[in-house]
Amino acid sequence: MDKTISPRTMGRLPIYYRYLEELQRMGVDRISSDKLAERIGITSSQLRQDLSAFGQFGHHGLGYHVGPLLERVSDLLGLNQPHRLVLVGAGNLGRAVASYEGFTRRGFLIKRIFDADPQLAGTYIAGAPVAPVTELGAYLAAEPTDVGVIATPATAAQEIADTLVAGGVRAIWNFAPVRLAVPDHVLVEHTHISDSLLLLSLRLHMQD
Amino acid sequence: MDKTISPRTMGRLPIYYRYLEELQRMGVDRISSDKLAERIGITSSQLRQDLSAFGQFGHHGLGYHVGPLLERVSDLLGLNQPHRLVLVGAGNLGRAVASYEGFTRRGFLIKRIFDADPQLAGTYIAGAPVAPVTELGAYLAAEPTDVGVIATPATAAQEIADTLVAGGVRAIWNFAPVRLAVPDHVLVEHTHISDSLLLLSLRLHMQD
Repeated sequence: MDKTISPRTMGRLPIYYRYLEELQRMGVDRISSDKLAERIGITSSQLRQDLSAFGQFGHHGLGYHVGPLLERVSDLLGLNQPHRLVLVGAGNLGRAVASYEGFTRRGFLIKRIFDADPQLAGTYIAGAPVAPVTELGAYLAAEPTDVGVIATPATAAQEIADTLVAGGVRAIWNFAPVRLAVPDHVLVEHTHISDSLLLLSLRLHMQD
Repeated sequence: MDKTISPRTMGRLPIYYRYLEELQRMGVDRISSDKLAERIGITSSQLRQDLSAFGQFGHHGLGYHVGPLLERVSDLLGLNQPHRLVLVGAGNLGRAVASYEGFTRRGFLIKRIFDADPQLAGTYIAGAPVAPVTELGAYLAAEPTDVGVIATPATAAQEIADTLVAGGVRAIWNFAPVRLAVPDHVLVEHTHISDSLLLLSLRLHMQD
């Protein structure tokens, strides 16, 4: 990938992406640099630096073109390359993740869903077939998979992570409220709903 | 609340909480300071500073008592005060949030769930009654509520946020992938599943 973009600018890419995608959904073709800077939460001069690192997407005075800029940000985020996923855990959270419409649009293809309940085997969730979790290892051995999503109870998460790692995934997206031990070459992205709840409690408490 | 604890230490409270809670669930009574520091990701000397700010929870050589320390961290996080919640949106994500067992344990009580589908009215999700979203404003006027949780599609989120603010909530926990405009006195905690997905994509892409 392009190594000339600074880490700070890279860190802002998800914010650019989310805002530009929202603009595109609302049918907006062009955005002024002042408004864009304000929504990203940076100064106009930082914005100009970011955009010149991305390439050329309009004239400062006339504003920027939403479509091409979104396309470029997507490229930089690696969203235009497909990633094969398996999802483990078909409870409410797993179903919510599987049903998330942004997945496929962003190149994340859920190939199969695994669950401890054998009754779910043979059903489909959001278009993906469900299989018994006992088949996870054999599946990964046969089907190269980039990312494993863990949406199981905390108690099961480490064992699933071990199976995913042994099966050769490059990354784990973990929703279980537990820290996972994995080798250094495997990326782990945590989404801990409980952490947000704790932060919210802390912030409310600090207001008192 | 206790203002003598530094912001850095405060920021570590959710990490302490998560780890200590895990230890307690596993039946561990005592933890050595070295192990605790390692899991929190700080040095032993930072740990001693944190713990002396919390109070006294054991002797450095003998390790720390998990139970009393967890209780103190919970207090500092404001988890021992009950908060009344409403949840808006009873789709997969809303159900996952409502079913999250950590809620009640942490003093967050879901009093009612609202959904746009009138067919769900009168049913119960995770013990909480479901009502039509058209009744949200009237409910808030009658029942003082601390926190509104938004688990609706992005398109509905701002209108729901406006209703919650007009109804006097102090905080909004937003799962919809959209930025909300709210007055300064209302806290907003965002949990954007899509941001984690974007970061994961970016990190995978940077490995390539």
